[in-house]
Amino acid sequence: MAQDEIRRPNVGELLRHVHLTGPASRAALATRLGLNRSTILALTAELTAAGLVREELPDRKGRAGRPSLVVRPESQRFHVLAFDVAVDRLVAARVGLGGVILDRREAVRPRAGVDLDRVVEVLGRFGRQLQAAAPPDSVCVGVGASYCGMISRGDGLVRYGPDLGWVDQAFGAELGERLGLGLPVLVGNEAHLGALAEQQRGAGAGFRNLIYLHGDVGVGGGIIVGGKLLDGDGGYGSEVGHMVVNPHGGRDCLCGSAGCLEAEVGERALLDAAGRPAELFGHDAVREVVHAAHDGDGQAREALNLVGDWLGVGVANLINLFNPGVVLFGGMLQDLYPATAPAVAARIDRHVLPVARERVELRISAFGADTTLVGAAELGFSRLLADPLAAPA
Amino acid sequence: MAQDEIRRPNVGELLRHVHLTGPASRAALATRLGLNRSTILALTAELTAAGLVREELPDRKGRAGRPSLVVRPESQRFHVLAFDVAVDRLVAARVGLGGVILDRREAVRPRAGVDLDRVVEVLGRFGRQLQAAAPPDSVCVGVGASYCGMISRGDGLVRYGPDLGWVDQAFGAELGERLGLGLPVLVGNEAHLGALAEQQRGAGAGFRNLIYLHGDVGVGGGIIVGGKLLDGDGGYGSEVGHMVVNPHGGRDCLCGSAGCLEAEVGERALLDAAGRPAELFGHDAVREVVHAAHDGDGQAREALNLVGDWLGVGVANLINLFNPGVVLFGGMLQDLYPATAPAVAARIDRHVLPVARERVELRISAFGADTTLVGAAELGFSRLLADPLAAPA
Repeated sequence: MAQDEIRRPNVGELLRHVHLTGPASRAALATRLGLNRSTILALTAELTAAGLVREELPDRKGRAGRPSLVVRPESQRFHVLAFDVAVDRLVAARVGLGGVILDRREAVRPRAGVDLDRVVEVLGRFGRQLQAAAPPDSVCVGVGASYCGMISRGDGLVRYGPDLGWVDQAFGAELGERLGLGLPVLVGNEAHLGALAEQQRGAGAGFRNLIYLHGDVGVGGGIIVGGKLLDGDGGYGSEVGHMVVNPHGGRDCLCGSAGCLEAEVGERALLDAAGRPAELFGHDAVREVVHAAHDGDGQAREALNLVGDWLGVGVANLINLFNPGVVLFGGMLQDLYPATAPAVAARIDRHVLPVARERVELRISAFGADTTLVGAAELGFSRLLADPLAAPA
Repeated sequence: MAQDEIRRPNVGELLRHVHLTGPASRAALATRLGLNRSTILALTAELTAAGLVREELPDRKGRAGRPSLVVRPESQRFHVLAFDVAVDRLVAARVGLGGVILDRREAVRPRAGVDLDRVVEVLGRFGRQLQAAAPPDSVCVGVGASYCGMISRGDGLVRYGPDLGWVDQAFGAELGERLGLGLPVLVGNEAHLGALAEQQRGAGAGFRNLIYLHGDVGVGGGIIVGGKLLDGDGGYGSEVGHMVVNPHGGRDCLCGSAGCLEAEVGERALLDAAGRPAELFGHDAVREVVHAAHDGDGQAREALNLVGDWLGVGVANLINLFNPGVVLFGGMLQDLYPATAPAVAARIDRHVLPVARERVELRISAFGADTTLVGAAELGFSRLLADPLAAPA
């Protein structure tokens, strides 16, 4: 076996490590990766020669001894383009190696009547603007996109996008053509990518079994089982939002069914219960209900109790099924969950078998509104990290 | 890298193949395992020398050409003991390499008031009888046990056995001591083991994403995600039976909650709805309701429709969550599912997103009443198959 074959996986592991957890000294890398210091030296030399990292003296005034050089990813030299087609906005960002968002563009997205051409036109323009604004020597190494719908594995086809009514739309291929970078656009479901973002560099780091719930109009799910995304036979797994929690007399759901978790917990359920007019929607409207309840609005409080009870049924079921280490709340659930935590806890106490809730934690997403965008960026970096030395320097 | 290090995983793979799929010619093994014939020859020689397989001329009258020797597992020389603590019976079996049940003992188990000592006493006696009846040159290479409760990973501790009220009982350790074979007793949850049995050698062979539902008093679940059992952070995953499907006004459940899938679908729900007296229970009583409905008993038919509707809600939720290739029904669900298939299909049509039900199949367990026993035997064989040449010859 040739030397470089033995070393190649380690090169990727080292780059992934500084990409995900930040600059680190050679000494720290040796410890964390379980490699000896001469191996770290050799790996770092290869990554430095490829321009992917640089080594520099640490900032350590007043400490004695010979300093260990710090290995830092070259965020300004290698980047990806990340796109997010969310229910309320279109986002594009240039994200540097190491995960730093260097530049971004954003547009409000109408809730309906937006076709593929329009989405691709806006995102394509944003992408070209971001590329034009990048330093001339920075290389785009990948493109990732998050979409709020069901995506077929590998080809970036939107099989079903309920909020826009999309069926079998070639989103990835069209966006790739519009960008003209000669790179494939890797597309993932927003909650799947959110789960991966949290596991890789967020509030779920270190967990092998993790559930990420992403709320907005509906509720998306991304579930990590034994360290891997649950995407099932076709790539459509983790569809938490269409778990039926209220099978008799539940609210109608966009999917055509009724009583789905997202019909009972999505923003419309909350806003209706709180007596808010049908014209109001979005994360801000949800926040307003939370604030109103806090300020003593009885109807807002009751609405939160009702929706929190359904959220609790869903979370309890998921804990029984998956025995996870952590359940994470993203999207508008970042506001809804803290405001309904007692109702959720009551359902967990009532329904979850004691041994399955011995260790589970409930947490908020680490990235605010950018969880899915961060996930799209990581998808974009996946090819480079799998084989860093195959990348253009 | 030494020759035997390269070869060792292949030895296990070859033995696993003939163990799971039966005797095969060298030529067929070469094709199926993707190895050349000289490698197959060498691997087979090692397994033959260890006494684990034998080679013999195939039974092929009247066919021309030189026959390829058939490799056959030595079922009479290597066996495991497999135990099954089910809700209604205690079973023990001697199972030969290749998965053939060579001998068995069985006792009716009272539904309540059975403590650990009594179970271990009965199973220990059965085990010693089976060992005494085995050929003198047959070697016991492992012990596996299935238990209808939640088992902590690795140590065979029954954390929670709802039907017997067991909490934290050292079942594996006690049975191992009673058997006195110097072998650990590997213990698994019955539905987990049922899922593995179906995936390895049953109706789920070839599927990477599979759901096994085991019905009796309750409903157990074993879920295979990406080829691996979903057992979560603590080993307690796949608890399908306590997924809440009827959160308001559901039937009381043994777990202390209400509206759980198993409370709505377990045998008591069916028997109550069919107007059967409380003294009746068990698989036979379930079958009687199915037969009565078939013969025109209106109340029995209505009971099946009701229970089938709840079963459909549960199955629909699982398909949305897991996007599986197959859902398998075992235990009393082998009778209940076919009798309620239209109700289940109606819920799937109503609730499952079309892309997630494109390819899913619904099937009956391949092993009748022995699914969990087969799973326990496979657990017993796991150490031998992981490293066949480390086994005593």
